[in-house]
Amino acid sequence: MRLDELNWMDVEGYLKRDDRLILVLGSTEQHGYLSLTSDVKIPLALADASSQKTGVLVAPPLNFGVAPYFLTYPGTISLRLSTFLDAVEDIVRSVYGYGFRRLLVLNGHGGNDPARGRLTELANVLPDLNVSFYAWWTAHSVVDVALQHNLKPNHANWLEAFAFTRVCDLPKGEKVSPSYKGLPNAAQTRQLYGDGSFGGPYAVSPAIMDELFAAALKDILFLLDF
Amino acid sequence: MRLDELNWMDVEGYLKRDDRLILVLGSTEQHGYLSLTSDVKIPLALADASSQKTGVLVAPPLNFGVAPYFLTYPGTISLRLSTFLDAVEDIVRSVYGYGFRRLLVLNGHGGNDPARGRLTELANVLPDLNVSFYAWWTAHSVVDVALQHNLKPNHANWLEAFAFTRVCDLPKGEKVSPSYKGLPNAAQTRQLYGDGSFGGPYAVSPAIMDELFAAALKDILFLLDF
Amino acid sequence: MRLDELNWMDVEGYLKRDDRLILVLGSTEQHGYLSLTSDVKIPLALADASSQKTGVLVAPPLNFGVAPYFLTYPGTISLRLSTFLDAVEDIVRSVYGYGFRRLLVLNGHGGNDPARGRLTELANVLPDLNVSFYAWWTAHSVVDVALQHNLKPNHANWLEAFAFTRVCDLPKGEKVSPSYKGLPNAAQTRQLYGDGSFGGPYAVSPAIMDELFAAALKDILFLLDF
Amino acid sequence: MRLDELNWMDVEGYLKRDDRLILVLGSTEQHGYLSLTSDVKIPLALADASSQKTGVLVAPPLNFGVAPYFLTYPGTISLRLSTFLDAVEDIVRSVYGYGFRRLLVLNGHGGNDPARGRLTELANVLPDLNVSFYAWWTAHSVVDVALQHNLKPNHANWLEAFAFTRVCDLPKGEKVSPSYKGLPNAAQTRQLYGDGSFGGPYAVSPAIMDELFAAALKDILFLLDF
Amino acid sequence: MRLDELNWMDVEGYLKRDDRLILVLGSTEQHGYLSLTSDVKIPLALADASSQKTGVLVAPPLNFGVAPYFLTYPGTISLRLSTFLDAVEDIVRSVYGYGFRRLLVLNGHGGNDPARGRLTELANVLPDLNVSFYAWWTAHSVVDVALQHNLKPNHANWLEAFAFTRVCDLPKGEKVSPSYKGLPNAAQTRQLYGDGSFGGPYAVSPAIMDELFAAALKDILFLLDF
Amino acid sequence: MRLDELNWMDVEGYLKRDDRLILVLGSTEQHGYLSLTSDVKIPLALADASSQKTGVLVAPPLNFGVAPYFLTYPGTISLRLSTFLDAVEDIVRSVYGYGFRRLLVLNGHGGNDPARGRLTELANVLPDLNVSFYAWWTAHSVVDVALQHNLKPNHANWLEAFAFTRVCDLPKGEKVSPSYKGLPNAAQTRQLYGDGSFGGPYAVSPAIMDELFAAALKDILFLLDF
Repeated sequence: MRLDELNWMDVEGYLKRDDRLILVLGSTEQHGYLSLTSDVKIPLALADASSQKTGVLVAPPLNFGVAPYFLTYPGTISLRLSTFLDAVEDIVRSVYGYGFRRLLVLNGHGGNDPARGRLTELANVLPDLNVSFYAWWTAHSVVDVALQHNLKPNHANWLEAFAFTRVCDLPKGEKVSPSYKGLPNAAQTRQLYGDGSFGGPYAVSPAIMDELFAAALKDILFLLDF
Repeated sequence: MRLDELNWMDVEGYLKRDDRLILVLGSTEQHGYLSLTSDVKIPLALADASSQKTGVLVAPPLNFGVAPYFLTYPGTISLRLSTFLDAVEDIVRSVYGYGFRRLLVLNGHGGNDPARGRLTELANVLPDLNVSFYAWWTAHSVVDVALQHNLKPNHANWLEAFAFTRVCDLPKGEKVSPSYKGLPNAAQTRQLYGDGSFGGPYAVSPAIMDELFAAALKDILFLLDF
Repeated sequence: MRLDELNWMDVEGYLKRDDRLILVLGSTEQHGYLSLTSDVKIPLALADASSQKTGVLVAPPLNFGVAPYFLTYPGTISLRLSTFLDAVEDIVRSVYGYGFRRLLVLNGHGGNDPARGRLTELANVLPDLNVSFYAWWTAHSVVDVALQHNLKPNHANWLEAFAFTRVCDLPKGEKVSPSYKGLPNAAQTRQLYGDGSFGGPYAVSPAIMDELFAAALKDILFLLDF
Repeated sequence: MRLDELNWMDVEGYLKRDDRLILVLGSTEQHGYLSLTSDVKIPLALADASSQKTGVLVAPPLNFGVAPYFLTYPGTISLRLSTFLDAVEDIVRSVYGYGFRRLLVLNGHGGNDPARGRLTELANVLPDLNVSFYAWWTAHSVVDVALQHNLKPNHANWLEAFAFTRVCDLPKGEKVSPSYKGLPNAAQTRQLYGDGSFGGPYAVSPAIMDELFAAALKDILFLLDF
Repeated sequence: MRLDELNWMDVEGYLKRDDRLILVLGSTEQHGYLSLTSDVKIPLALADASSQKTGVLVAPPLNFGVAPYFLTYPGTISLRLSTFLDAVEDIVRSVYGYGFRRLLVLNGHGGNDPARGRLTELANVLPDLNVSFYAWWTAHSVVDVALQHNLKPNHANWLEAFAFTRVCDLPKGEKVSPSYKGLPNAAQTRQLYGDGSFGGPYAVSPAIMDELFAAALKDILFLLDF
Repeated sequence: MRLDELNWMDVEGYLKRDDRLILVLGSTEQHGYLSLTSDVKIPLALADASSQKTGVLVAPPLNFGVAPYFLTYPGTISLRLSTFLDAVEDIVRSVYGYGFRRLLVLNGHGGNDPARGRLTELANVLPDLNVSFYAWWTAHSVVDVALQHNLKPNHANWLEAFAFTRVCDLPKGEKVSPSYKGLPNAAQTRQLYGDGSFGGPYAVSPAIMDELFAAALKDILFLLDF
């Protein structure tokens, strides 16, 4: 259940029986041939699926994350790291204020990882706050699915090519992953990655994607039990 | 057309023929009996409608705004004013970077009004940037519709009770608007407004709502012609 | 009574019998033919007049506000929105620290309106703090005076042409108000408004100005009764 | 000539023949038996006197400085150091924008000294900006006057007891200067200093005060010749 | 060669023939039985070793990083994430200003990883700046050494027990790694990890440590060739 | 005893019998012919010497301070004033958190003086925190040594030419101190000071340097008795 479908009385009622909430940290950024909001859509789909099984509420996603290296790709919208961290803090403090105590943060984008530091700072000062942080594509269970199929997970390759992130036909075949020494800036990133995929197959069978999704969902259900 | 449905190549193509973009500034906050994200849904609906008529692209909404006075109503998520302004700046700088030059900001929430100051600061330093700012419920045309029907526009009353913001049945009749001297804090606000509506009828006929929507849409189409 | 005329022992004595304070938020900015500090002078004059009637203390004005759109007019001094908000917060926290609990903020400039958001944030965390916020030129009572005389209130027109804001002779006649789509930046603002007045008559009779002042003063006296 | 008495056209005219401006950094804080705004009044008086002799314009004072150690004395209003520095920056950038190039900062309060760091940072990035900084009570010439009369300059003692900073009769005689190891906080400061004077005679003859003022004025006239 | 041993003329001379600099980002934090500054000592030792082979200069280390989860362990000193990022930015801008263009950042602590985001933001705005970022304990080559010896790398276990980080005798044997769901705050972290090691053997043979160091050094020499 | 040589258990043991800590605020900046980290080395040497006599612990130095005026001299690394102040705050809050209550800040650089303001702000909000601040070169005792030998203390002259800050032979003779009106920026500073010394003899006898060091050490031992 998303907050969008509720009014405040509904949430007040919910808080009488539960204090868990799922927060989605997304990103609007180039994903090669995939949707610019793939990093919102994937964690939100996982949030919805786990909400359906557990009844835990889902907050509206933060649609923007930290992706300065993609700012040469039209459609990318990146918050400064400092802005992003402040936004995460404000969201947490808001929901903590009226009683949420167990927050599961579903992160959709690697550049958002620094949120972990700010969340720990908050957990140091907000009594009884428990925070879990899940970045699906880095989870052992998800990586295992990839390994079992001899696939390498990469930004904007098959890994993120779910039915719901596709906005056009995907190229056949594989892309060779370019390599680079150092931290490329936005101009160098575009020169390096061209179409934006970090390499590997552009798509795999729906069955594998379902397996991937199921693995992440299982992790989330485990984490929601806190 | 929303960015969600596009990849970066689509946006690059669009920028060859147009440099307009619609930004939606929303808020997740109590709206009485209406959806907690009414202030996202309404400007987004207007954005979609105007996009359909003009082809101008729509960026993902900023789902959170500045609503510190509602923080006692569960489900409200408020950014600090400083965070919100920084987020607006980062969004504008991102899209300016690869070529958008005419931005129409559709604001859904009164507390977000200070964005105007930051947008002006940005327009002072980003050459050729043109920004329009539209807060639908304050527009002359929209207020005129209300006046013609002898209705007073208010937070979370009939004014925002579109079909798409309703999440339950609405009370019959009217609420008396409470009055208050000074700036109420969140605790005082809840005591003052109870169910969250600022008073007046909870709902009016769909025909009036359509009239309202059409008036705002007409304004937006006028503003998009810049 | 202004703080300027007192020492700290005087204020300590005052706090034993009263906890009200008037804060003036001004602006140093172009006002057409009028003084660059008109937005300080007007609310300060109102503060002095109400202090004379009630004995409520008046703090030194914050002489600078948020006016980025006027930065092309020599003499304008604008704080960034973030700086301004921090200054307002620091002033409030300082006087709250030793016992002021009822603060009436007299605002002199529209660009300072975002202070309301920060003040609400403060009222959420400082127990027993009561804040009122008054922007004289937007008050119903003041607008009514204008309407009764068939006058339109505007920046740097007759509305602000008090005897004490005049620094030279004012033009005869009226200026046509220019219109503009969007948020003009500082360069566009100067091109648009030329001499800086937003249009209408440059001056009206002293009697009307007195009426205006009296209407605002009456409002303030009402608000001071909190 | 203060900006208060001018409109923007006057300043535009001035800038055609001169690009100097005097900025006053004050403080509203306990000064023992003297006015709470002594640190505004003194540098402003010096600014006015030097303006009279040179025609250099004087900006409205920043009435608030950094005085966290006095926050237990009612009437003290202290900006956080970060806010104060941002305000100084914004003022400088504003006036630099339309052509002021030689700024003389007259500081009234020791706690404002860190402004020097920010001013240097600004002078590093704003081409052709020249900044002078004068803290009258630390100047050799002023200290010499004190030494010649066997007087020790101290906060809120005779040193600041000008006719125009007095708001009541001053105690006769001298106060013994308390001594303290370390940085006292606001509570310790009040315990330590009691009436707020840092010790020494509360007042000296008008002739000495005139000498003091003349010495500072001479310095300022020298600095204005840049 | 460290900057400590040089004066500015030496650096000016160096810049005529090279524009590379090694920056060390450390942390002062609990490391179980090891030195509180292990995360400074290790990357600094690597910096010195690579400087000896290449002549590349080494800047003084930033001794403090982001370790909010360890703030219950006496001796830990953690910067807020925002402070840390600003410090990294200021260091980079300083050395860029007079000509360094290729910066190798040697990071000693996982909590400092968000520096990558800020460094990318800087590389977007500082022309010709090239930044490499190396976190030795996450490098493939280092992890491979661990795998070859059937060892698991962990905070404050054998991995960091170099001769130069030891300040007392280390426990014999192994510690079982505790597991935890979610992001522990500082209190939970201490309860969870007790002595501070994240588990595994407390020490291994000097030969393995030399192998580890050599692997990291080889990586760094490769990266310095940019 | 420096924290470098200890682990957290050592510090925990120390806190059972003492709650004093020495913090060193340094700077990496041009010092003429002397080491770029002279402002770290001197206060750290004083800290070590006083630690040896008293057993008080010494935290790792903050190697970077505020020196914007020297940014044209290669090797200078300056933090923005705001960053520096935040770093000082974070260090203080960290050590306060687990029990340090008496902090002696040994400052090595004049540009770091604004730390005093932030430290006072912290002492206002952290109960029982006592802070002393010592800037050795401004101490009466140290200035007296200079006066007794008819020497003028100056940046990067004999005053800082200890055996342990020298990195090359020093020029014979004296440099004439240049004079300047106003606050020079980094370009003007370099033009003004050339080799970086502010004038006077480049070196004096080791005996005088020992006298100087002893005078400062005596002050510190006095301050540590709080």
